[in-house]
Amino acid sequence: MTLTVLFAAGDAEFAEYLAPLTEAFTQYGLQIDLVTKAMPEAVEYIIYSPASTLRDFTPYTRCKAVLNLWAGVEKIVGNPTLTQPLARMVDPALTRGMVEYVCGHVLRYHLGMDAHITAAPGTWVPQEPPLAPERVVGILGMGELGRACATALAGLGFAVEGWSSQPKQVADVTCHHGREGFDTLLQRAEILVTLLPLTPQTENILDARAFALMPKGAHIINPGRGALIEDDALLAALDDGQIAAATLDVFRIEPLPADHLFWGHPHVTITPHIAATTRAKSASLVVANNIARVESGAELLYQVDTARGY
Amino acid sequence: MTLTVLFAAGDAEFAEYLAPLTEAFTQYGLQIDLVTKAMPEAVEYIIYSPASTLRDFTPYTRCKAVLNLWAGVEKIVGNPTLTQPLARMVDPALTRGMVEYVCGHVLRYHLGMDAHITAAPGTWVPQEPPLAPERVVGILGMGELGRACATALAGLGFAVEGWSSQPKQVADVTCHHGREGFDTLLQRAEILVTLLPLTPQTENILDARAFALMPKGAHIINPGRGALIEDDALLAALDDGQIAAATLDVFRIEPLPADHLFWGHPHVTITPHIAATTRAKSASLVVANNIARVESGAELLYQVDTARGY
Repeated sequence: MTLTVLFAAGDAEFAEYLAPLTEAFTQYGLQIDLVTKAMPEAVEYIIYSPASTLRDFTPYTRCKAVLNLWAGVEKIVGNPTLTQPLARMVDPALTRGMVEYVCGHVLRYHLGMDAHITAAPGTWVPQEPPLAPERVVGILGMGELGRACATALAGLGFAVEGWSSQPKQVADVTCHHGREGFDTLLQRAEILVTLLPLTPQTENILDARAFALMPKGAHIINPGRGALIEDDALLAALDDGQIAAATLDVFRIEPLPADHLFWGHPHVTITPHIAATTRAKSASLVVANNIARVESGAELLYQVDTARGY
Repeated sequence: MTLTVLFAAGDAEFAEYLAPLTEAFTQYGLQIDLVTKAMPEAVEYIIYSPASTLRDFTPYTRCKAVLNLWAGVEKIVGNPTLTQPLARMVDPALTRGMVEYVCGHVLRYHLGMDAHITAAPGTWVPQEPPLAPERVVGILGMGELGRACATALAGLGFAVEGWSSQPKQVADVTCHHGREGFDTLLQRAEILVTLLPLTPQTENILDARAFALMPKGAHIINPGRGALIEDDALLAALDDGQIAAATLDVFRIEPLPADHLFWGHPHVTITPHIAATTRAKSASLVVANNIARVESGAELLYQVDTARGY
C-alpha cells in the first residue's frame, strides 16, 4: 500500500532531501508518494520544517504523525491547530556534530587557545593550565544532546555537572535540578554550555542575575537556542569581566543582524548556526524508521509532550 | 638507612621540587638526604634534568639509577659516560596534559575554529564540516603519549591511524609501521600529530618529501620535539598551500628566536612548550616510587634502552 507523505518545508530542503528520503523509504520497505502539495485529507504523514508555510493543521484529518526535521520544535509546538502527534528530530549525526562542537570549544577555553592563535609575534609566556579534572564544566539541559556532551566531556576527564528541570542520573556527571540546583550549577561552572529547549520557562534563563552567580571570568558556550540568553545582560557581563568570553552559535534573529553588538565584540566568537546541523542522509533514515514503526503498530519515537513544550 | 640523592637540575627546579619530593619520599617510606652537591662516590641516585651542568657521570660509581625529570631523554642518552640505568619520566599528569592539548588542537582544525575566532564582523557563512569518523588523524609515534592521544581521539570518533618503527597494536586505531607504513600514514593523514622521540632516525623525519606525500591542505600539530620537523621544508609547504596550517609547541631552540620565520607566519600557531609539562607533585611521586622499587629489589620502571635512544 502506498502512503501519501507531505513534505512541508522549503524548496531548498526538498531538493536536498528528495534522494536521501527516497533511499531511506526503500531501505525500510515503505512505498511512499512523497509530495509537496496534496489534498489535506489524503495526507498520512507530514515531514515538517519551520521553513514551511503550513500553519493550519486542522484539515489534515487522516495524518498519523508530524515528523520534524529540526531538533528544536519551538516554532511548531505552540500551534493550537496541531492535534496530531509530533516527533522531534533525534539524528545520531546531529548529536555527534554537537558533541564535537562542544568538546572542541570547551577544550579551546580550557587550554586558553585564543591567546596563542592571536598572539603578537615573539610572545613566549609559558603557563601551566589546570588539568581537566580541576575544571568544572556545567551543562544546562540534560536531554539527548546535553547528556551526550556531558558524557563525552567526562570521558576527556572534565569535572562535569549538569542541570535539568527534573532529576536525571548520568554516569560520571553530577546532576542538579530545580531552582536551587540551577543556582548551584551556575556558582560552580567555569565553562557553561547551554543545551536547553526553548520554552516560556527557559527564555532569558541566562540573565543578569544568572551571570552574577557564576565564578568571575567564566566562559559561556551557547549552541542551544539564542533566546536562552538575555543579550544585553551578556554584553554587560562581558564588558565588566564577570564573563570572560562567549561563543554563540544561535541567535534570536538569524543571520545575526549587522548592527548587533555581538558582532566585533572582542570577547564574543560567533559561529553561524553550525554546531549541529541535520544531515539529510541520517535524518531521512530517522524519518523512515519512525513511519515504518507507526505503520507496524509500534510507538512513535521522540514524541513531543506538547504541554511541556519539548 | 638514609640514601644520598643528588638533585642535578636547575636552581629554579630545586625550589619547585624540594617540598613535593620530600613529601613523596615520606609517602614511600624513604629516608633521603636530598642534596645539590655531594662527593660523587657517596651518591646513590641522581634526579636529573637537562638544566643541570652535570656532564660526566664516571665518578658516580655507586649510583644505582639516574631518574630523568623530563619525558624526553635525547640530551642525556648519548652521553658516553652514562653507564648507570636511566629512567624516563612517565608522569600521568603529563600524559593527561598532552591528551588535552592534542584533542583540543585536533578538534580546532577539524571544526575550522580559527576562521570563526578571527572572522571579520558580519561574516555568516554556514558550512557543514565532515564528522569525526570521516576525518583521518595520523599519529607519528605510538609510545606512552602517542597511544594515549590515539585512544582519546578514537573515543571522540575520529578515524585514527598511528605509526611507529616497530609493529604495535592499539584498540580502535589502525597501526602502521616501518618505512612503507610511514608513507601510507602520511598519504592518509588530514591532521598529523608528531609524538616521536628524537633520535638520529627521527630527526627531520618531516621533510619536503614527507609533506609532499600528505593530502593537500593537511594540518600539522607538533607537541613532540622541534627537530622532528625540517623548518624550511615546513615553511615552503605552508607557503604553497600543501600544508594548510601548523601548530608547533616545540622548537630546535627555545624560546623560539625572535628572527625565526615561524613567528608571525599567518598559518603557524606557536605555543610556548606547554603541551605537556612535568608537574612537580606527580613527577615527585613517580621518582619516589622508582627509588623505592629499586631499593626493594624490584625492576626500575621506564628504563631507557640507550642503544635505541629512548
